[in-house]
Amino acid sequence: MPYIDLQNELPGIRGLMAYSPATAKPLNELAEILLRNDENSLSRGERELIATYVSYKNDCFFCQNVHGALAGYYLRLGIAEIDAIKAGERRQLSRKMQALLQIAAAVQQGGKSVTPSNIEAARKAGASDREIHDTVLIAAAFCMYNRYVDGLATWAPQDRQFYVERAPQRAAEGYINTPLK
Amino acid sequence: MPYIDLQNELPGIRGLMAYSPATAKPLNELAEILLRNDENSLSRGERELIATYVSYKNDCFFCQNVHGALAGYYLRLGIAEIDAIKAGERRQLSRKMQALLQIAAAVQQGGKSVTPSNIEAARKAGASDREIHDTVLIAAAFCMYNRYVDGLATWAPQDRQFYVERAPQRAAEGYINTPLK
Repeated sequence: MPYIDLQNELPGIRGLMAYSPATAKPLNELAEILLRNDENSLSRGERELIATYVSYKNDCFFCQNVHGALAGYYLRLGIAEIDAIKAGERRQLSRKMQALLQIAAAVQQGGKSVTPSNIEAARKAGASDREIHDTVLIAAAFCMYNRYVDGLATWAPQDRQFYVERAPQRAAEGYINTPLK
Repeated sequence: MPYIDLQNELPGIRGLMAYSPATAKPLNELAEILLRNDENSLSRGERELIATYVSYKNDCFFCQNVHGALAGYYLRLGIAEIDAIKAGERRQLSRKMQALLQIAAAVQQGGKSVTPSNIEAARKAGASDREIHDTVLIAAAFCMYNRYVDGLATWAPQDRQFYVERAPQRAAEGYINTPLK
């Protein structure tokens, strides 16, 4: 049960956003720009994978399943394959994505954990300044979303198939126009 | 020197925001609502103090000095007094603020580090659901801002008096209308 009375039964960040629409607005706009804006050389699937990986590292069940299902939907991967990537399997990813996930893991530990060699490895694998910037900000943003969701002890559906089934609809709606109820 | 070419010389998050105005917009709107919105029973100074404390825990020099100077400005405290609060001195704070800073410290560790007893202590000290919500979200948001600033290795003025002198102007401008250049 959530630590505060959200006055709704919605799971995860949805319950928090219905409780606090004023803060929901910029939180949703940030997710929309970071994860879905089409003027980005990282695909939506790649960006959702970065979000998923950070949420996994932060042990946030709701976020890693919402975004893992979206990553799987975009990248045409099943739960087991997404789980394998979270656990360290990298062979099916590009060298660039491997290097960006290393940067994301460093950001999850703390801003100062990102080293010049992390950045150099990403550059050598072809990552642009913009891709490095977006990776750092996606990882940082999920350190916020994850803490918001778990810091107030929101509930989450435990059946992981629930998230997979919802992913196509979530992908169609985006983060801004998602109905809260 | 920042890890990426920001094409400007601005310090801290200002350089990042000038580089990426599309993400700057929701990031600034979130800060404005969380830290300045007048419909809030926590004062601006109290909210800036929560932001300062989390930035200190995350060892983010730029953020702890920007927001520490603002907290000092609003609460009429000097650098030394703000530093003492960051380091654990709590006698001059209300019991409610003491309990909310405990929650913020837990959020900085991770969402799941917030315990029912943290929440219970805040309630006993008079904290409302809304105040607990805002404390968690402010702490979570600064886990993002701090990682964004340090994860890309932005530079920061080292003279702490610089931040103190700028605080009145920053307080007058707010986060949305701050000129980036």
